[in-house]
Amino acid sequence: MKDLYGSPGKVSGLLLRIGQCVFAAASIGVMVSASGFSSYTAFCYLIASMGLLVLWSFALACLDMHALRLRRDLRNHILVSLFVVGDWVTALLSLAAACSSAGVVVLFAKDTNLCRSQHLSCLRFQISISFAFISWFLLAVSSHVMFWLLASV
Amino acid sequence: MKDLYGSPGKVSGLLLRIGQCVFAAASIGVMVSASGFSSYTAFCYLIASMGLLVLWSFALACLDMHALRLRRDLRNHILVSLFVVGDWVTALLSLAAACSSAGVVVLFAKDTNLCRSQHLSCLRFQISISFAFISWFLLAVSSHVMFWLLASV
Repeated sequence: MKDLYGSPGKVSGLLLRIGQCVFAAASIGVMVSASGFSSYTAFCYLIASMGLLVLWSFALACLDMHALRLRRDLRNHILVSLFVVGDWVTALLSLAAACSSAGVVVLFAKDTNLCRSQHLSCLRFQISISFAFISWFLLAVSSHVMFWLLASV
Repeated sequence: MKDLYGSPGKVSGLLLRIGQCVFAAASIGVMVSASGFSSYTAFCYLIASMGLLVLWSFALACLDMHALRLRRDLRNHILVSLFVVGDWVTALLSLAAACSSAGVVVLFAKDTNLCRSQHLSCLRFQISISFAFISWFLLAVSSHVMFWLLASV
C-alpha cells in the first residue's frame, strides 16, 4: 500500500483523529450549553452523530498511538477496508446532522427571525454547527485517504 | 484503467446519469408545485442544488451517449480527474441541500406542528426531498466509481 499523509499508524493520521475528536466534543459541549436545544430533533441528532464521531475517532486514535509505539504497520487490506466503511458511515451521518442543523438555524435566524423574538441562543447553535463542520471536514480527509489506500492496492 | 460498473462511456454509466437527471428534475418539479416554498432558504437552496445536478448529469449523459455511439474510451486520466472533482462537488452540495431541507421539514412536521396549523404543503416538501436523496444516492455511486477508477491507475 502507498504511503500517504494521514494513513493509519502515522503521526499525521493520529493528528487528524485527535482533531476530529476535539472538534466533535467541542460541538457537543457548546450545543448542550445552549438552552432549549432539546426541543429540536435536528440538534439532538447533531449531538448523537457527534457522539458517534467522538467514539469512532477516539478508538482509531488509540489504535494509531498503539501502532506508533510498537512500530506496527496498520496498512493491511482487512483493517483498511474496516476503516473505510466506518469512516464513510460516520462522515455521512455527521455531514447530514451538521447540514440539517444548519438548515434549522438559517430558518430561525433569517427566514422567521425567531432568534430575536423567541430569545433562542442562536449564536451557540451556530458555533456548535461550525465545530461539527470542521470535525466532518477532518473526517472527510481521513475517509478519502483510506479509500485511496484501499483502491490503490 | 479498470472496467467497473458505472464507468464513463458505458451503458451502466449512462443509466446512472439519466437516473440522476430524472430524479433531480422531479425533485425540482414537486418543490416548485408546493405553495410557499420560496419563503424558506433551505428549499430554495435545494432547487438551486438540484438544478446544478441536472445540468452536470445531463452534460455527462450526452458525453456518455457520444462515446457509446462513436465507441470512444473516456477512461483517460485527465477526463476522469475532471469527472471526480465535478461529481464530488455536486454530490456534496446536493447532500447538504437535501439534509438541510429534511431538517426544516422535520421541524415543521414533528417539533412545531406547523404543517397542520399553517397549512403548509409538507407532503410535497417530503416527496421532493425523497427524490433529492435518491438523486444524490445515484450520484454518490458515480462519484465512488470515478474515484476508484482514478485511484486504481
